[in-house]
Amino acid sequence: MIKVGIVGGTGYTGVELLRLLAQHPQVQLLAITSRGDAGTAVSKMFPSLRHRLDLSFEDPASASLKNCDVVFFATPNGIAMEQAPPLLEAGVRVIDLAADFRIKDIACWEQWYGMRHASPDWVAKAVYGLPEHDRTAIRNARLVANPGCYPTAVQLGFMPLVEAGLVNLEQLIADAKSGVSGAGRKAEIPALFSEAADNFKAYAVAGHRHLPEIRQGLSTMAGHPVDLTFVPHLTPMIRGIHATLYARIERDADFQQLFEERYVGEPFVDILPPGSHPDTRSVRAANVCRIAVHRPQDGNVLVILSVIDNLVKGAAGQAVQNMNIMFGVPETEGLWQLAVLP
Amino acid sequence: MIKVGIVGGTGYTGVELLRLLAQHPQVQLLAITSRGDAGTAVSKMFPSLRHRLDLSFEDPASASLKNCDVVFFATPNGIAMEQAPPLLEAGVRVIDLAADFRIKDIACWEQWYGMRHASPDWVAKAVYGLPEHDRTAIRNARLVANPGCYPTAVQLGFMPLVEAGLVNLEQLIADAKSGVSGAGRKAEIPALFSEAADNFKAYAVAGHRHLPEIRQGLSTMAGHPVDLTFVPHLTPMIRGIHATLYARIERDADFQQLFEERYVGEPFVDILPPGSHPDTRSVRAANVCRIAVHRPQDGNVLVILSVIDNLVKGAAGQAVQNMNIMFGVPETEGLWQLAVLP
Amino acid sequence: MIKVGIVGGTGYTGVELLRLLAQHPQVQLLAITSRGDAGTAVSKMFPSLRHRLDLSFEDPASASLKNCDVVFFATPNGIAMEQAPPLLEAGVRVIDLAADFRIKDIACWEQWYGMRHASPDWVAKAVYGLPEHDRTAIRNARLVANPGCYPTAVQLGFMPLVEAGLVNLEQLIADAKSGVSGAGRKAEIPALFSEAADNFKAYAVAGHRHLPEIRQGLSTMAGHPVDLTFVPHLTPMIRGIHATLYARIERDADFQQLFEERYVGEPFVDILPPGSHPDTRSVRAANVCRIAVHRPQDGNVLVILSVIDNLVKGAAGQAVQNMNIMFGVPETEGLWQLAVLP
Amino acid sequence: MIKVGIVGGTGYTGVELLRLLAQHPQVQLLAITSRGDAGTAVSKMFPSLRHRLDLSFEDPASASLKNCDVVFFATPNGIAMEQAPPLLEAGVRVIDLAADFRIKDIACWEQWYGMRHASPDWVAKAVYGLPEHDRTAIRNARLVANPGCYPTAVQLGFMPLVEAGLVNLEQLIADAKSGVSGAGRKAEIPALFSEAADNFKAYAVAGHRHLPEIRQGLSTMAGHPVDLTFVPHLTPMIRGIHATLYARIERDADFQQLFEERYVGEPFVDILPPGSHPDTRSVRAANVCRIAVHRPQDGNVLVILSVIDNLVKGAAGQAVQNMNIMFGVPETEGLWQLAVLP
Repeated sequence: MIKVGIVGGTGYTGVELLRLLAQHPQVQLLAITSRGDAGTAVSKMFPSLRHRLDLSFEDPASASLKNCDVVFFATPNGIAMEQAPPLLEAGVRVIDLAADFRIKDIACWEQWYGMRHASPDWVAKAVYGLPEHDRTAIRNARLVANPGCYPTAVQLGFMPLVEAGLVNLEQLIADAKSGVSGAGRKAEIPALFSEAADNFKAYAVAGHRHLPEIRQGLSTMAGHPVDLTFVPHLTPMIRGIHATLYARIERDADFQQLFEERYVGEPFVDILPPGSHPDTRSVRAANVCRIAVHRPQDGNVLVILSVIDNLVKGAAGQAVQNMNIMFGVPETEGLWQLAVLP
Repeated sequence: MIKVGIVGGTGYTGVELLRLLAQHPQVQLLAITSRGDAGTAVSKMFPSLRHRLDLSFEDPASASLKNCDVVFFATPNGIAMEQAPPLLEAGVRVIDLAADFRIKDIACWEQWYGMRHASPDWVAKAVYGLPEHDRTAIRNARLVANPGCYPTAVQLGFMPLVEAGLVNLEQLIADAKSGVSGAGRKAEIPALFSEAADNFKAYAVAGHRHLPEIRQGLSTMAGHPVDLTFVPHLTPMIRGIHATLYARIERDADFQQLFEERYVGEPFVDILPPGSHPDTRSVRAANVCRIAVHRPQDGNVLVILSVIDNLVKGAAGQAVQNMNIMFGVPETEGLWQLAVLP
Repeated sequence: MIKVGIVGGTGYTGVELLRLLAQHPQVQLLAITSRGDAGTAVSKMFPSLRHRLDLSFEDPASASLKNCDVVFFATPNGIAMEQAPPLLEAGVRVIDLAADFRIKDIACWEQWYGMRHASPDWVAKAVYGLPEHDRTAIRNARLVANPGCYPTAVQLGFMPLVEAGLVNLEQLIADAKSGVSGAGRKAEIPALFSEAADNFKAYAVAGHRHLPEIRQGLSTMAGHPVDLTFVPHLTPMIRGIHATLYARIERDADFQQLFEERYVGEPFVDILPPGSHPDTRSVRAANVCRIAVHRPQDGNVLVILSVIDNLVKGAAGQAVQNMNIMFGVPETEGLWQLAVLP
Repeated sequence: MIKVGIVGGTGYTGVELLRLLAQHPQVQLLAITSRGDAGTAVSKMFPSLRHRLDLSFEDPASASLKNCDVVFFATPNGIAMEQAPPLLEAGVRVIDLAADFRIKDIACWEQWYGMRHASPDWVAKAVYGLPEHDRTAIRNARLVANPGCYPTAVQLGFMPLVEAGLVNLEQLIADAKSGVSGAGRKAEIPALFSEAADNFKAYAVAGHRHLPEIRQGLSTMAGHPVDLTFVPHLTPMIRGIHATLYARIERDADFQQLFEERYVGEPFVDILPPGSHPDTRSVRAANVCRIAVHRPQDGNVLVILSVIDNLVKGAAGQAVQNMNIMFGVPETEGLWQLAVLP
């Protein structure tokens, strides 16, 4: 059994981690911390877990995280970079679901996240955790930087094209739409039901924090700098990301085949038949990315549709997938739930 | 392995059965039929099942249902009463998710369902499948009439009171609210998104088909006729039923304790602590009924709140629970998924 | 032109007042105050008002509210009782959309609202503003206590029965469902989209603040104390209240006719034909209450369905209706917008 | 008073026309037709219109449409091309909300709409009805082809750039998201609540019928052929279109100023301040298009955000605007309702 701890389990990625880990046959949940809710039974905050998870939130100070084999950080940005290093140095492996260790360029990170980085050394040692690209490195990683939700959907959608160098890498466009849970379980006016329901809008068009993460990932895949326009939108659903990706073709190819071959054997990436339109509910609550490849009117623009559940393949599910890889258990263990439809 | 067939798998209870059975460790799905969609791969209609269910819809005539140990009917009312008897006579056990075998009084059934009953004999032999009340009979049943969604939520909420005879049985009120999936996967104007979203309404106040089913069930529990006012409503969510039940107290008791004791050991009924308000999402996609017991201002009215997922404990999940009982496998097998929240 | 001021215009009843008053042909909006947002253009906070309302929020201290003919308070409970008296004494008429002046029994108010009342004298002078019951008194009122949203739907639905004394007044039940905007524009977790969407729950079953208000109103109509069980629910829509009302018949009558006659000539109450099920969208954004009268299976229980838009007939629209009555302009002036459907 | 008839008033554009026309001070509604619902009171189908519209659906054959000054066709594609010519020849002016007269190239129309065109002569005489571009021609038009919903949002968003020739006209991208009412009031599975709620998907990526309409419009504005990638999406809201438009800059300019100057004086186009993100609810139920102009990171890609209510500025509202222009009444008459928010 893998002994697991969670730091900061009161948000949506936290409760999703709990849902997945409580059903994982090789996991023993040792501790979950929350500064604000220490002492509260987890199942009191999340009645969906009643009779299935017998833990209370503990104060981070008192929690015996050092006895864990692995600790997940489901905290706001800026926490893991402070609290993970002591655990790492004690030999505990860490998977950070926040952004603290994702960006290799510290200056760039500090600019986009508006704070000083507390442990640049660990950034250098951290492994970016997109299994379909980084599986080998993840296996032995002490610290995994779990990708952001948008970056997961966008990178998986562009990866085959970028690696093969078939499209113009200076004119990529990612028009992405997210459900409201992506904003987290924070009491803020714009995320209220009466603000977000029956409504649609773009946000952060001037620049979203996931832009440098996507740029870094695609540039790594391409082997040289990639330029991208990224526009996120808020759509009135709870879970799900739909990324609509546009790329200009530079060299012709059988793009459908390219995608199918790139992802052959991948348990969590599903390339749909030509002409398909994946909907987000087809991955609701499941650790899957479904992708369709379109070339409208046989023109010179490719349109890639990529959907994930932002809380699963875009966060907690991918984190568990990374844990499975790190501990040598089958990659699909505990992640084989079917999507909930309707 | 239990060899399973499904008749009529293109509706919402059908796809939910597929989701549950495809993940059930002791089930082998042999055949699924659909007259209209014969030849279509199931995963083409429901992409959520891609790579996990390798079956196509078959014509009912050609399907080898007689080789199954059990066949689920997820058909419109009036089909099972025609097609189940030959299977039953061939020794196949049947679980009907429609209403054909629920009402013992044939004249009553014919009045509410507006058709002549084709197999009254099998109605007499059928066992009503509310495990918390009928577990023993279900065990050896050849034909189980799986309860309706509203009747499940309402009966589980009233059962302890009615059995104990503590409330006025002529003045029960059940004000129930259902998500739109309860209307089925049928192309009808009132179930359109633009009609049902951001909207709330009652329907069938003059009389809903689940009324005689609830009356029959509660009367059986009480041992004499029970009268009930039942008002269903449509609420803009996909899944979920919330029944708000009102009863006048005739004899005082510790009602919280009454409920806890009645359901002690039941794996799928959860009595919440005093003061609780169960929300439907706490049972979303899970085979659970959560119940709270209130006595506002210590008056003489009890208010019981009872929530289920109409497609799981209100349909497909309860059907699988019945199958487990019938075949002697642990009752929770394949039904242990946690609710999806948020 | 009626010179109008608004205190506290940043909530949902505030912006709804702005929408209605900005289109009212006999209103001149002089000032709108907000302590927290003084200096901000109203149309910056609410872009729906761009180019149509050229006002900025002012500090309450500096705003020239005393120059107004009437001031609306769209503030949290406890503000109007402090700030309205000086205006009233300066001759300004006041319509309070909060609860400060609704309950005549000061001790009762203080118990339910958990604070000491600052101006009990004005409670005594205040007129409860349900036009269909209080029209004459409203005409000359200096201070109108605008009814709560639930109390409006419930009282209009019970009023004909209670006035006529045809039902058991000790066993009334009001099962009410509200859209999420009823919780206000406050940053609170339970009102988040990801909490409230695709979800349904009861709340405050032990006792909701609107209970004493409804009891007081119905008791006044009946001429003696009325007892009521009131259970509010949260339903995933933005606007709308649906009250399902249950009453035991004590004396027979033509109940449909009773309702039609009681409300004949009322511009904002619509009694639907027998057998109808009003939906909340049929009153979305309109100042209308639609009511249907049912007697299921000709039994001894009446079921009344009553729908309003909680922000219009349940708040801002009714407040404008009261203003129209107070200032002798046609009651429908500025309130004649049709419901928005779909 | 303008005497008005409506052919086909049972869909969403039909009922929206009714809402607007019933409140229009210079309109007298003479007749509304529906083959399937002849004899039914309009307010029976749409209770939101009770007591405000005293008309019944008439059979098209019997309706006295020839006595009207103008007839709106709110019919499926292919009806107006059959039924409008006799009215036109009798001197009745016609506004077609369907696509029959939008595309000048008959062969192109026949290819995209899959039928033979019945009156190519009237296509030649028809005036495309985008007031901000075609106001002069609309004034004297006998037949107006009211633009599609997507084409309205996309053309208004691109028009200033295309007219000024500042961007690459071979690489335009329009990523558009629509509420479900855009699919019409038709009983079809994909538009069911349980299919479309809590879900997001692209559709018709291979080619949507609005593509040739947009291409034709932009090419006219540019004076030469324009190429465009157009991807529509379905988003779980009732009303609203959000178009996210991408264009490569070829010549620099003050783009914010360009847009403000192009639309100065336009009553129904609102250019937001720099940095804005218009949301669809800011135009809900209002005849407005709100536009924001972005140039992320001062790069060479412009991102234009353009929102409308698909049923108002995208259909019925624009049709009434065209009627106002045709009959010389103020363009805003009957169209001055504020957006409904929240």
